[in-house]
Amino acid sequence: MGGNDSLAEFLDTAVEAAKAAGEIIRKGFHLKKNVEHKGQVDLVTETDKACEDLIFNRLKQKFPDHKFIGEETSAEFGTAELTDDPTWMVDPLDGTTNFVHGYPFVCVSIGLSIAKVPTVGVVYNPIMNELFTGIRGQGAFLNGNPIKVSSQSELVTALLASEVGTKRDKVTVDATTNRLNSLLFKVRSLRMSGSCALNLCGVACGRLDLMYELGFGGPWDVAAGAVIIQEAGGHVFDPSGADFDVMARRVAATNGLLKDLFVSAIEEAESSSRQF
Amino acid sequence: MGGNDSLAEFLDTAVEAAKAAGEIIRKGFHLKKNVEHKGQVDLVTETDKACEDLIFNRLKQKFPDHKFIGEETSAEFGTAELTDDPTWMVDPLDGTTNFVHGYPFVCVSIGLSIAKVPTVGVVYNPIMNELFTGIRGQGAFLNGNPIKVSSQSELVTALLASEVGTKRDKVTVDATTNRLNSLLFKVRSLRMSGSCALNLCGVACGRLDLMYELGFGGPWDVAAGAVIIQEAGGHVFDPSGADFDVMARRVAATNGLLKDLFVSAIEEAESSSRQF
Repeated sequence: MGGNDSLAEFLDTAVEAAKAAGEIIRKGFHLKKNVEHKGQVDLVTETDKACEDLIFNRLKQKFPDHKFIGEETSAEFGTAELTDDPTWMVDPLDGTTNFVHGYPFVCVSIGLSIAKVPTVGVVYNPIMNELFTGIRGQGAFLNGNPIKVSSQSELVTALLASEVGTKRDKVTVDATTNRLNSLLFKVRSLRMSGSCALNLCGVACGRLDLMYELGFGGPWDVAAGAVIIQEAGGHVFDPSGADFDVMARRVAATNGLLKDLFVSAIEEAESSSRQF
Repeated sequence: MGGNDSLAEFLDTAVEAAKAAGEIIRKGFHLKKNVEHKGQVDLVTETDKACEDLIFNRLKQKFPDHKFIGEETSAEFGTAELTDDPTWMVDPLDGTTNFVHGYPFVCVSIGLSIAKVPTVGVVYNPIMNELFTGIRGQGAFLNGNPIKVSSQSELVTALLASEVGTKRDKVTVDATTNRLNSLLFKVRSLRMSGSCALNLCGVACGRLDLMYELGFGGPWDVAAGAVIIQEAGGHVFDPSGADFDVMARRVAATNGLLKDLFVSAIEEAESSSRQF
């Protein structure tokens, strides 16, 4: 692995890459409004690609032996299977629909897994200028200040984040709204930001108490957020209550006081979503 | 009405009041995290009251003949019935749940109705530092820059904002999720910010294409946003497609290209929500 194998160096490199990519996103975000619709779609593709190239090139140059799992890169020079090797999981532009529309919840998400454990995480929202960082065992931070999960202990006062996903077949949409229906009887309210990584960071810094999402893009959406939540004192887990699997495209997160209550509530929501 | 009856002066006074109240909100928002839960609830009440007193005192002092409709003030020195008189409709802290949790969608909303027509609007989010303003016939602005609604013309690429409200009885929750279910088959995606006024402004500046909300607090949530949307080239209307009634606690908004499609989609959603 060469001499550059300290966790701090991994983090610093990821932060630098995220900030440089964030600059590209910020320019595109503000440029967007002056571009025709056809051009907007191209702008997303171009921005996504430019950010991805930038991030992967920086990481590869600095850590040539590390592996990569990414939305686009898996085919090109990455891997689809997670091994024990240090493996970067990068979403260069999380919240692409928000980017297209100019809704401010967009971010770069960069996570590093070592021995299959999410170990370094960086999530950067360049529009709201919020940089979330975490290293396993060393705490979580928002713009350099320590963050922690909320101390809510009852579902009835808890704020839930979830998403409706992108699939629009009847089975998926019905299951989604039935789940939300069941959960709404138990929680205070529901937020949908359109960014999985930012929902995880919202739980990490206590703005949100609960998050729950199925069928998102891939491990690059959750690897960084998982580290940040755990280092903020929270729990990230499979919605069934089982251990978190970064590859599973299923995630839930909350604080330690709400975890069991949340798992039970999700279980009821899942069974009600199957009733219909 | 005295000599201070120019629309520009109404707007300037409202902006000054919103900014001063925004300062109180910003302090409370960042203080909040260090306060115990019981104290948080007190902090919301205190912040809400302090902002309301500040705004009403400034408006009353400058425009002593104007009337007021507010969440708290109606009983005290306001009115519950809208007349032709210049009438201020003020929500000193829209998004109180967000304020409690530290979720950044909070705002001050100040609207002025003249001859029953929403005529001046100010919506200020002090956390994200966004000031939306509008005067009937004179355009809409975000931080001084002109804004306009999106040019989306198809529902399938449109971003919808809605909310789940605060009622948790079965009839209301079922109707809400059934409506969302129906709409999800037609639109690109769904966002929930927790602020009715900011959803309206989101449509006004083109971040959102569609918004739809029933049973929100009162006219103070929508009076300012209604002016801002219309001046941004959009439409604000009753979800049935009928004329907007600021007192009705029912609102929908979009651009001119999507209005008819959106009204039809809402109609189908309403009828499906009654089937269950």
